[in-house]
Amino acid sequence: MSKPSLARGTRDFGPEQMVKRTFIFDTIRRSFQRYGFLPLETPAFENLSVLMGKYGDEGDQLLFKILNSGDFSGKLSDQDWQEGYKPLTSKISEKGLRYDLTVPFARYVVMNRGTLAMPFKRYQIQPVWRADRPQKGRYREFYQCDADVVGTDSLLCEAEIVMLLHDILPALGIKDFVVKINNRKILTGIAEMVGASGMEGPLCVAIDKLDKIGKEKVVEELLERGFSELSVQKLEPIFVLSNEKEPFAELKTWLADSEIALKGIQELEEVWAMVKVLGIENPQIEFDVTLARGLSYYTGAIFEVKAKNVQIGSISGGGRYDNLTGTFGVPGISGVGISLGVDRIYDVMEELNLFPESQNASTKVMISNFDADAFTFGLAILPKLRKAGINAEIYPDSVKLKKQLDYADRKNIPYVILIGSDEMQSGLLTLKNMRSGEQQKLSADEIINALTKEI
Amino acid sequence: MSKPSLARGTRDFGPEQMVKRTFIFDTIRRSFQRYGFLPLETPAFENLSVLMGKYGDEGDQLLFKILNSGDFSGKLSDQDWQEGYKPLTSKISEKGLRYDLTVPFARYVVMNRGTLAMPFKRYQIQPVWRADRPQKGRYREFYQCDADVVGTDSLLCEAEIVMLLHDILPALGIKDFVVKINNRKILTGIAEMVGASGMEGPLCVAIDKLDKIGKEKVVEELLERGFSELSVQKLEPIFVLSNEKEPFAELKTWLADSEIALKGIQELEEVWAMVKVLGIENPQIEFDVTLARGLSYYTGAIFEVKAKNVQIGSISGGGRYDNLTGTFGVPGISGVGISLGVDRIYDVMEELNLFPESQNASTKVMISNFDADAFTFGLAILPKLRKAGINAEIYPDSVKLKKQLDYADRKNIPYVILIGSDEMQSGLLTLKNMRSGEQQKLSADEIINALTKEI
Repeated sequence: MSKPSLARGTRDFGPEQMVKRTFIFDTIRRSFQRYGFLPLETPAFENLSVLMGKYGDEGDQLLFKILNSGDFSGKLSDQDWQEGYKPLTSKISEKGLRYDLTVPFARYVVMNRGTLAMPFKRYQIQPVWRADRPQKGRYREFYQCDADVVGTDSLLCEAEIVMLLHDILPALGIKDFVVKINNRKILTGIAEMVGASGMEGPLCVAIDKLDKIGKEKVVEELLERGFSELSVQKLEPIFVLSNEKEPFAELKTWLADSEIALKGIQELEEVWAMVKVLGIENPQIEFDVTLARGLSYYTGAIFEVKAKNVQIGSISGGGRYDNLTGTFGVPGISGVGISLGVDRIYDVMEELNLFPESQNASTKVMISNFDADAFTFGLAILPKLRKAGINAEIYPDSVKLKKQLDYADRKNIPYVILIGSDEMQSGLLTLKNMRSGEQQKLSADEIINALTKEI
Repeated sequence: MSKPSLARGTRDFGPEQMVKRTFIFDTIRRSFQRYGFLPLETPAFENLSVLMGKYGDEGDQLLFKILNSGDFSGKLSDQDWQEGYKPLTSKISEKGLRYDLTVPFARYVVMNRGTLAMPFKRYQIQPVWRADRPQKGRYREFYQCDADVVGTDSLLCEAEIVMLLHDILPALGIKDFVVKINNRKILTGIAEMVGASGMEGPLCVAIDKLDKIGKEKVVEELLERGFSELSVQKLEPIFVLSNEKEPFAELKTWLADSEIALKGIQELEEVWAMVKVLGIENPQIEFDVTLARGLSYYTGAIFEVKAKNVQIGSISGGGRYDNLTGTFGVPGISGVGISLGVDRIYDVMEELNLFPESQNASTKVMISNFDADAFTFGLAILPKLRKAGINAEIYPDSVKLKKQLDYADRKNIPYVILIGSDEMQSGLLTLKNMRSGEQQKLSADEIINALTKEI
């Protein structure tokens, strides 16, 4: 018999991790709700017709596909087998695992658009699966927490996303962070301006490395990627743009001739103004003209969030897309969305030691089990503790006390009630504080009182 | 472009259903925690070596299998293709979707037994997937809520499961239910007694129909299933066993010669006694000698729960198994578990109208949007509402009020704050109660006060 193992790139979440992850999920969920987002859950698998072609060629490859049930191969000809795995896949598989939360959301909006109250604000917290090569910090199963508004062009949505992040992150204890913002229209305008229309993708990839590799190398890369000498010269201002609080003045001068760029700048200015009215005291937002993130997708604002004081990639990203449901034949539904990466957030919080001490998912008090009489005595107390809302258990076997206390210790149970013949006679139980070792004689009611205060 | 659709047998859960489902999950989770169970989550897919052979031949067929990534077919020979789909499956698929929560739990226990505090009490609330033919009330994706204790033989675990059910179901509003209990050892003893050792499976299937088809037909079926005339005669007492509160006296007389049956009866009597000490006022438990549920699996107590006053199958089931991890090469780990079916519970609650009115996941108050000035005015109030813990939003576009109120109505938002020029001048805002239609002039602080009380 071989030892069982986890599938590659997947993880179990034991009690300790679950308590921490639940803290993150609950905090995010609470903020989403406070902003008027409503919950949605979609199935783990979708028809491949819904998923294929939505994530590019690479994405299609990274989709986990489910083998058709029953005799999937009976009707196939020799030729089918010899065509290679790609055409073969479509003949033996009809379903795939959820790859992100956006495409299923788009499908949901299309299928329910007759009954949804628009603008529709939904949040969705579910795992997604990608057949990526597993490596440190990259898994084949991971959770996404998405909030999207669809059915309105209002820039309020962009401002609200900034607010939401300023709500969620401090609530998690992440106080130092930066929300980087850009606008796709500005990138389109720049590409236009330098005579490289439509090349904003490679432009951003190259410019993004400025901090790391320096201007000279970036210029080299731009030339390699097909930008002309002239285009690169015209890009000069991008290298010297200051990241000041009001960074738009310089940009406006430089891009004065591009209508679309000016529109993008104006949109950002409006977002900046609204954030001010919304009253964040010290907004941690920063304009970053090189920010691109899955460019093909976004049509307006683009967001990315990084935590400071840690070497961990972005913990959140999003933006505005003008054609969420176009691929399903329903054009003209605009939306803005943000996605939070729970695994990265978890890592940030671990590294900065931000998880709260209290673990109220765990047992608060354990009743010991000396012998049959003491067990029956304790059994009668147990439901009283629980009725008071105290997480409680009784040790199931009459084994050595050391073993019982060891169990409580390993389970991080802070209190143990010791019941022996003295305790049964007097009705005063011994409450042992497992951290300090201190012991007190108290009645059952007094114990309930004391522990209830700590919940 | 074809209309997108859901994969067969799967469902979306929109906001209204999510609020109700979350209520069920939260209630169950709270009870699990109060009883000292700790949370666990395992991956959606497992290596097929972990899953295959654990659920019988039918189960193996009903596992959703994931096609290997990349060129899964390149190395296969013509012969491989012609062998039929079963042997072929193992060559092109290594992973399968979770079929239940028990096998992944067993794998987890085996992989972590060095570090787990035993007895280990865990709960797990996750979806499972089965390639069953979809039909009314039967889905290919559904949630299970399991709680198990492993690593102890103590009958306390059985009594605690009875308690747990008496905690969870009333908390959900399900006050009339019955927890049916049997013990595998009694069934084994009966089969032995009537000269049909090992035939407790078919015995239970037939006897279970007594209520529906009557004694005569049951006898017919037993004979068909290979029981001798003599065996059936010896079974006579089972047809007349009364389901009294103390049903064990008759049974003890009848089965006096079967050591194993007496052991089973003694176990149940102990559970009954402990439940009494645990102080449930009116325990809704019932001994049912025909209860079997996946017999091959259970070795001691067997549970099944039905809600009364509705025609819906069992909402929970479980029992004791003595060899959870034996299949992974680690024998001797005994456990007891219970599984709650959320879909069935949902249906019961819908039918009996048990969901609470309050939907605190939804927006509590919406600020209207008359024009740019009023919008900016409202924008400044929004964060104050949220800081007070009130779920709030502002309508993003300056459209006709009717449309805005219609939105609030469809989203079930109970209050709307109307802001016009009067309101901006006086600072007294109009709070509209969407149910009664009543309007009040209040300051922002007064509104916050009023709404906070209702959370």
